[in-house]
This record gives sequence, C-alpha cells and structure tokens, in this order.
Amino acid sequence: MDLTRAAAEALDDADPLAAFRDRFVGTDDDDANRLIYLDGNSLGRLPRETPAALGRVVEQEWGAGLIGSWARWIGEATRVGDALATGVLGAHPGEVLVGDSTTVNLYKLLVAGAQARPGRDVLVCTADDFPTDRYVVAGVAEARGMTVRELPADIDEGLDPAVLAAALDERVAVVVLSAVAYRSGALADIDAVTRVVHDAGALVLWDLSHAAGSVPVELGATGADLAVGCTYKYLNGGPGAPAFLYVRTDLQEQLRSPIQGWFGQRDQFDMGPVYEPAEGIERFGVGTPPVLGMAAVEVGAGLVAEAGIDRLAAKGRAMGELVVALGDAWLAPQGVTLASPRDPGRRGSHVTFAHPEAWQLTQALVDRGVVPDFRTPDRVRLGPAPLYTRFVDVWDAMDRCRTLLAHGGWQDYPAERARVT
Amino acid sequence: MDLTRAAAEALDDADPLAAFRDRFVGTDDDDANRLIYLDGNSLGRLPRETPAALGRVVEQEWGAGLIGSWARWIGEATRVGDALATGVLGAHPGEVLVGDSTTVNLYKLLVAGAQARPGRDVLVCTADDFPTDRYVVAGVAEARGMTVRELPADIDEGLDPAVLAAALDERVAVVVLSAVAYRSGALADIDAVTRVVHDAGALVLWDLSHAAGSVPVELGATGADLAVGCTYKYLNGGPGAPAFLYVRTDLQEQLRSPIQGWFGQRDQFDMGPVYEPAEGIERFGVGTPPVLGMAAVEVGAGLVAEAGIDRLAAKGRAMGELVVALGDAWLAPQGVTLASPRDPGRRGSHVTFAHPEAWQLTQALVDRGVVPDFRTPDRVRLGPAPLYTRFVDVWDAMDRCRTLLAHGGWQDYPAERARVT
Repeated sequence: MDLTRAAAEALDDADPLAAFRDRFVGTDDDDANRLIYLDGNSLGRLPRETPAALGRVVEQEWGAGLIGSWARWIGEATRVGDALATGVLGAHPGEVLVGDSTTVNLYKLLVAGAQARPGRDVLVCTADDFPTDRYVVAGVAEARGMTVRELPADIDEGLDPAVLAAALDERVAVVVLSAVAYRSGALADIDAVTRVVHDAGALVLWDLSHAAGSVPVELGATGADLAVGCTYKYLNGGPGAPAFLYVRTDLQEQLRSPIQGWFGQRDQFDMGPVYEPAEGIERFGVGTPPVLGMAAVEVGAGLVAEAGIDRLAAKGRAMGELVVALGDAWLAPQGVTLASPRDPGRRGSHVTFAHPEAWQLTQALVDRGVVPDFRTPDRVRLGPAPLYTRFVDVWDAMDRCRTLLAHGGWQDYPAERARVT
Repeated sequence: MDLTRAAAEALDDADPLAAFRDRFVGTDDDDANRLIYLDGNSLGRLPRETPAALGRVVEQEWGAGLIGSWARWIGEATRVGDALATGVLGAHPGEVLVGDSTTVNLYKLLVAGAQARPGRDVLVCTADDFPTDRYVVAGVAEARGMTVRELPADIDEGLDPAVLAAALDERVAVVVLSAVAYRSGALADIDAVTRVVHDAGALVLWDLSHAAGSVPVELGATGADLAVGCTYKYLNGGPGAPAFLYVRTDLQEQLRSPIQGWFGQRDQFDMGPVYEPAEGIERFGVGTPPVLGMAAVEVGAGLVAEAGIDRLAAKGRAMGELVVALGDAWLAPQGVTLASPRDPGRRGSHVTFAHPEAWQLTQALVDRGVVPDFRTPDRVRLGPAPLYTRFVDVWDAMDRCRTLLAHGGWQDYPAERARVT
C-alpha cells in the first residue's frame, strides 16, 4: 500500500461518498488547524439538515400544531423504524421500532426472548460485551433464576463461533452478542453465529450499536431473531438519541414486553382495563415516544440509506486498512500494537490500538486536534466515519500520532481518568 | 360569583402570573379568531425560550463540541432533576432523576419497591388509574407471582382514603396512585394516603403526571416514598419529553433498578465486569440519557419554578372554579354534568364534564377554536394551564360551549373515534 499523503488524497478523489462530508456541520474548517474527529463511533457528527428538521417539529408541529400533531407523531416510531429497517438494517417494514434507550430495549427483548423459551434457564453473553449488555444479562438472569454463561472472547479478535457452539445446549434460551465489538471493532460472523444458536434451539439477540450504519447487517437474510442498537454513533442521531429494536416478523406474536405500557397496547386510546399487546412491532412500545429525538434519527438514518450501506462499509474497510497499514509502519515501532482483527473483513469501521499509556496518549492527541477515544484498560479507538471522514483525515491523524510518539509529551498528562472519557 | 366576561377580565388584570403568557408561543393571536387551547394537561405549549435552548444544545454542544460536551451532558439528568426537585416537587436535591418515559420509570420503581418489601405479595392500584399504570402493575404482579388489588375509585371523585385503608394489610408491598386523576382531575389526599400506606408498612408510589406543575406536591413534607411523572403536560417539556423519577433519600440505598444499565453503574467508565449500583439517585439511570429532550425540560421546569407552584395552583383553582360555575350556569341545563370533584381543594388544574355525546362535542369544539380533550367513556376535559391561560380564555371557551349546545351541530360529527384523540 502506498502510504504517502498523496495516495490518501487520491483515495479521496475517487471516493463516491466524498460529497456527503458537506452534509455535516464542522467539516468546512480550513486545513491548517482543523479538528480531526475520529469518534463518530461514539457520537456521530451533526447533519446540516438536522437543526431545520428539529425546528419544524418544535416550532410548527409542537408550537403551532399542539396536540393535533399527534395525528402525525403517533406513527413516528414505526415510520422511522421502517426507514431504519429497509435503509440500514436489511430488515422488513414492521420489524423495527424506534424509542427508549438501547439498554431498555435490550432488557425488553431479553426478558421477552427468555419467556419464549420456557424450560431453558441459561443466558449467554461474552466477557467482552459492552458493559450495559452484560449488566442487563446479569440482572435478568438473577431476577428469573437463570444462569449466565459468559464466554471468553478475545478482546482483540472477538468471539470464535466454535467457542460459542461448544457452549450451547438445550438449556440456553437467548444468546446476546454485539455484531461489532465496542472495543476492538471485531465483526462477528453473523451467519455462523445465527446457525449455531438456532441449531441449539435458542434465540440470538444482536446489539448493533457499533454495526448499524457501518457494516451491512442484513437482519432478514441472516435469519436474526432479535436486535437492538443505538442511533447516536454511525447513524448520527445526536446525543442520547432514541434507540431501536428489531423483532423478526414471525416471532412478534410469541413475544411480550415485560414493561406493559400504553404505547404497546392494542386500541391504545380505548384505555381499556386489561393490557392486551398490540399486533406487530408496536407491542414493544412502552411510554410516549420521544418525538424530538426521533426527528433527528430520521435525518441521520436517511443519510445512511442515501449513501448506501455497502458503499459505507467498503469505505469504512478501506479507511481501516489505511489505519492498520500506517499503524504498522509508524506506530508499531513506538510500542503501539494493533488491538483489532487484522483481516479487514472481520472488522467494523473502527480500529483500536493498545499502549500502556493509552489514556495519556488520548489526552495528548485531543490537544493536538485528533479526537479518538479511550477504552479500558489500555486502548485507543480510532473511528473514521465513512460518511464524513476523508482518507487524508486518517493520514493526518496517524501522522500526528507518529509525531507525538516520536517527540513525546503525552507522559505529562494525568494517568487518572476523568469521569467521562 | 360574577359570571360576566368583565369579571373574567378583572381576574386577568389582577393575575400576578399574567406576564408568563407572553413567554409561550401561540399566545399573541388576535382576539377575533384565536385558538383557545385547554389541553395543556395533555401537551403543554412551547415556551419561547425552548427553540433557542435546543439550538444551543444541537448546534453548539453537539455540532461544535461533539464528544467533549459529555463533560456537561453527564450531569444533566441529575442537574435537571434537582431543578425539578426543588422548584416543582418539594423534594431535595439528589432525589429526582430525569430520563426514560413515565412508564419505564414506573416499572423500575415498582419492581424496586416490591423487592424492598420481601414477603409481601400484593400490589395496590385503583380501577381508575391511568391505563399505563394499571398495565405496568398487572405486568409486574404477573411476573413476580404477586396479586393486584384494584380498588374501586369513583371516576369523578377519586379515591377515598378510607377505602384504601380498608384494603391495606401486611401483604401489601407497594401502592400505586395518581396524585391527580387523569380523567376527573381529582386530587388525592396525599397526606392521608401516605399515612395509611405507611401504617401498613407498604410503600407509596405516586404518578405525578397531572400534578407536577399544577398543584403543590411537597414530596419531602408528605413523606412520599417513590414517584414518577411526565414533563410534557404542565411542565411544557414537549411531545414525548423525558420523564422523571423520585426516590426519597433514605430509601435509595435499599432499592435496585431491575434494568441494570451502564448509566446506573458506579464508576461507569471503568466499565467493570460486575454491575454495582451507583450511590444515590443515579442508580436508577439506565441508558444514555436523552440530551435534547432534557434541555427542553429544563426550560419548562424553570418557568414553573419561576412562577411558583403555589401561585400556579391558586390560579389553577380559581380557573377551575370559574369553569365549574359557568358549567353550572350554562352547560348543566343542556345535559352536561360535572365529572370532577366540586370542592376546588380536591381538584388539580383540569375540570371534566360528562355528556353522552362527549366525543362529538369535542370534535365540534375543536372546529370552533376550543381545544379540550376527550376521555373515555363520555368525558370532555378542560385543562386551563395557569402559566398561559387567561380567565377570559376560560370564559370564552365556556361561552362557545354554551353556544354549541344551544344551537347544535355536534351531532353531525362521527361517533367513532379516530386512533388519536
């Protein structure tokens, strides 16, 4: 691979998604001292259309339309869900609902899934799943008198489907897994995982938080059972944006949400005395949906759908390959090691490195205009977002890393982490 | 009571809260054909400050500040919670958390409360509680092998504390009640209820959705245990705005959320392997909090605090008295009956009437520029919001009701309800 900046520029010139960069706020700063934002895997950038879309909802629909706007809002959770289903997740209309947080959605579907496998008393996750996933699994298991099998997953390479297969038996009700690992970016072998889980008669519940908008998920084609995910990373829905949940059509009638809310009730406005779940995906609704947040999700999901998930994934892979190649050439000699799968087909769109002073390096990089993020225990994640990150951004960020490592200075930063990283 | 329009104008002239009307969008329409919005008990109006506050969060904090803004956002759920606690709910700082929906919060606190009363296997609610409350109670009871005692509550007059007292015994773990009944506006006798529930060794969990911002709740002084509520009614937080939850300080360490999320975890960003609840109210957090929505809640709650809950409640009572007096004089002869407590001290800020064709009347009133709302089976709710509704608005709305009833026309509207009312 040609590791010159000119080669990176050439990749940008040939990038079919290049024009999307202008659709985001903060991308027109001049080259001399621009911020290189490689944290779109944590909080995606603000789409230029979003303030106007929010303004319409706030000023026209709420301010002027008042309660009458519920005629429109009542359908938002499924309308935006359908847009995610068909534009981003490879699912069918009627299979995705927007609302609540990823954690609440995970809780709902995990309990519902466990109930749909009576007589089975084991939940499976991996030791490297995102903390909230592991906490929810532990809590549900404890409340239901179930056992957790927490599989050893290599924190760099992700889960080996053979390890999973060996852990499955007729006691397993639900397997919770991240499609893209939050720390390493390892992309699960979704087909193989689904096969072995189904062979065991269990349900698979995917956390798509780091996958949605960065890799083709194809929930329909892979036969996925259940999924949840967030919209504030590659879907650019904004801080704390409403999450989504997915339930395969033929499973919906078998599953019941443990949180029986009026937005999951059949004939909701009859306000009848007895809870009876709505038909279809709406039965997984709970309370009044977050109207403002959904409007921002719609814009972000629309941009992903417009760009096309295959093109986004291809660019994400290519940027990842550049990160890895530059890491090998420039960072490895300075004691920085790759902490993601080396095979680009086994990664999402972020790449992680390990260094004993990763936290100090992260702080020093931020002060040098490069925004990665730190993850325990000693990892720096670089998340180039294919919608708005250029290859030259990747090159320049790696160049600034190289310079920092060569000249030092990160050692002066505090080793103790602040509350938010 | 003087029932002339001039008397209503005089009340407006003497209203110490009159200036707050200008702080809301849509209140400067000319008198000739203005909309009279009496549905602030369902969706409060848009405060004029809200679009700018949202714009700051979206464009400055998200767009420009990106991930670095989490240094501010991480404290929002408790910061806005503290503002609600001290400005609206009569609670202490550290007792209120903003986030999730009312229903999700109710679920969390109900399960947590039931767990904190081991050996007790009964949950109590009333047959007239808001549907989502009854559905949650039923679902939690079923999942935990508990029994629901659903008390008969008069749908006009609310719950008699003596009926509640008679239903309580050592089997009861948690009593769920609305402080202000959604249909009738009946204000519970909070002191009496708390006393009889505590006498039985149970916990009381208040739904404050129709009370917060309309009546003095005084959670601290009344010894309330748990509470939840929404912010899109009298708190003007916008459609689907984040809800709140309250847990009395000395109970917090005894209670655990059933949904073990990373935003309820001690030392969250250590991302440790085992869930350990945070100290204090933050243990009831779950997923990433809805940052945009919380900014709107902060504005709305700020206006209520600025106006003062005692002044708001006094004006709400006075407007309610005018509604009742005009109803007696003008509507009762036309077959419309009061369906709220007649004693103003026993009402929140909305007043409800019954009529066999309430749904048709509601539609006809909307077409005549008066926005009430319909509630099953035959009720029309009028919710004058003391922050922005004038006494002349109440007078004019009742006058339009009187004219409609005298001249007819509502009978032509469909009897079948649309999905959203």
